[in-house]
Amino acid sequence: MPKLLILSQHADEYTRLIQSAALPELEMTTQPAEDCEIVFGEPNLIRDALPRLPRLQWVQSMWAGVEPLLGAAARRDYVLTNARGVFGGLMSEFVFGYLLAHERKIFQRHEAQKNKIWDHSPTGTLQGKTIGLLGVGSIGAELALTAKFFGMNTRGYTKESETSNHVDIYYHGADVRAFASKLDYLVGVLPNTMDTRNFINRDLLGALPPHALLINVGRGQTLDEYALLEALNQNKIAGAVLDVFAQEPLPQDHPFWTTPNLRMTFHTSAPSFPKDITQIFIENYLLYIEGKPLKYQVDFKRGY
Amino acid sequence: MPKLLILSQHADEYTRLIQSAALPELEMTTQPAEDCEIVFGEPNLIRDALPRLPRLQWVQSMWAGVEPLLGAAARRDYVLTNARGVFGGLMSEFVFGYLLAHERKIFQRHEAQKNKIWDHSPTGTLQGKTIGLLGVGSIGAELALTAKFFGMNTRGYTKESETSNHVDIYYHGADVRAFASKLDYLVGVLPNTMDTRNFINRDLLGALPPHALLINVGRGQTLDEYALLEALNQNKIAGAVLDVFAQEPLPQDHPFWTTPNLRMTFHTSAPSFPKDITQIFIENYLLYIEGKPLKYQVDFKRGY
Repeated sequence: MPKLLILSQHADEYTRLIQSAALPELEMTTQPAEDCEIVFGEPNLIRDALPRLPRLQWVQSMWAGVEPLLGAAARRDYVLTNARGVFGGLMSEFVFGYLLAHERKIFQRHEAQKNKIWDHSPTGTLQGKTIGLLGVGSIGAELALTAKFFGMNTRGYTKESETSNHVDIYYHGADVRAFASKLDYLVGVLPNTMDTRNFINRDLLGALPPHALLINVGRGQTLDEYALLEALNQNKIAGAVLDVFAQEPLPQDHPFWTTPNLRMTFHTSAPSFPKDITQIFIENYLLYIEGKPLKYQVDFKRGY
Repeated sequence: MPKLLILSQHADEYTRLIQSAALPELEMTTQPAEDCEIVFGEPNLIRDALPRLPRLQWVQSMWAGVEPLLGAAARRDYVLTNARGVFGGLMSEFVFGYLLAHERKIFQRHEAQKNKIWDHSPTGTLQGKTIGLLGVGSIGAELALTAKFFGMNTRGYTKESETSNHVDIYYHGADVRAFASKLDYLVGVLPNTMDTRNFINRDLLGALPPHALLINVGRGQTLDEYALLEALNQNKIAGAVLDVFAQEPLPQDHPFWTTPNLRMTFHTSAPSFPKDITQIFIENYLLYIEGKPLKYQVDFKRGY
């Protein structure tokens, strides 16, 4: 009977959700023990427990990002799967919430109301605008689908994959400036890997039109923070919405807090709802006990 | 050769758009004259010009709302068509912009940033929430479609029609309290008619759950303003977004300006973009010169 270790701030809720699923042949614990063969948990807690898990076979991460379990010296003698597929819809809500707030001047109207001004100034529309997706995995594909729903043009920049049919034009390799030119919106959905560090840099930001808005929901390390500060302070782009940061929580003295036209959302763009994440675990557990290949496997070398 | 009168604050732009379409047999003017047979314009300007147009056959309104041309004593010896079909997408952007701002706490995160607080509090989602559409014409149907795209449940309240397939359950007549119960969002899309005045009243607002948000994009006259003030001040509902008002611009001493949890957007939800509106005119003009029935005809008695 496989023994499952649950490692989470919300371990009680996850335990209850898994119990109510009545899975075959499963023993559960929330304390690391020598005989634990499966871990379902948050990557930072898992990293600390790894030395005490000699019989580990499989780790199901509760998050999409698994950086704490990567790195050159990290243990790799188990199958690592992450949370995927459930974030696309939530991320779409986040990204399009901010795109619409921008077009519809939601903050400007709010200020007008405070000042008792009947602000009937014209509003924008997403129809016909162009969105550029930096990274087109399952989340990028969902963003492309939503963009098409709202009548937008879509561009995608990827290493080589061209899997989503909702992307009008794909760009790769050195075409990054061509990709960025004429974008109304640039959305970063990159994971944190050796190849993606500071990918959103001065060169890329400089290729955007001055009315463009950057939204970063990938990882903070993929953005050159100084290049963004320069671009915003010199009005090279119209604004930025940042959900992720190289250091979280952001230090109190970081200039981002007070940079004009920069909105921070404190890593809340795609919450891991326990009900959704437990479904992923259950799906994979049923494959596991039948000895079949697991879904959403992470390549330790590639980093996602 | 039919003579067309264009009556608009943007008459120059409309004239240019129609000229570039090179329509057959059309003479244009921007000054009312006895021999004008067609009017394409804004209803308030048309109302004033009506007495000087003895040969009038057809009026194409540039707006959806045609109240200035209705009323018991109004002239009815011509075909009146309004602007329809182009507002659904724009209205969807507006409504879902505010729904997402609410779920994603866009204003709360903004305040947190100003106070340098890392506000990682959980965010909501539209998935599984229930939206109630008060009125399901072409705009309501588009809102229902968008709600389905975001994984919501949909309810519709109409006089009798049940035309949209994207509405899960329809309600009519006395079922208005049953319709309102359990809604997370109530969106008013009603035209201004004898039957709809103050339809959003104390009874309807009282049937909503306390966490519900009201969005009114129909007409201001369909809302009992005092009932809404009471509901908001007594926390009977969570908030309201009002685009339309019984009197516009809203008087400076109106309590709406300073009511907590009430956001005003100054009749900007679905702008009439001249390019879109001109397409409607062109479509109808081509039917007109062939003697075919026009699209989007307004029933003077029904009022829409």
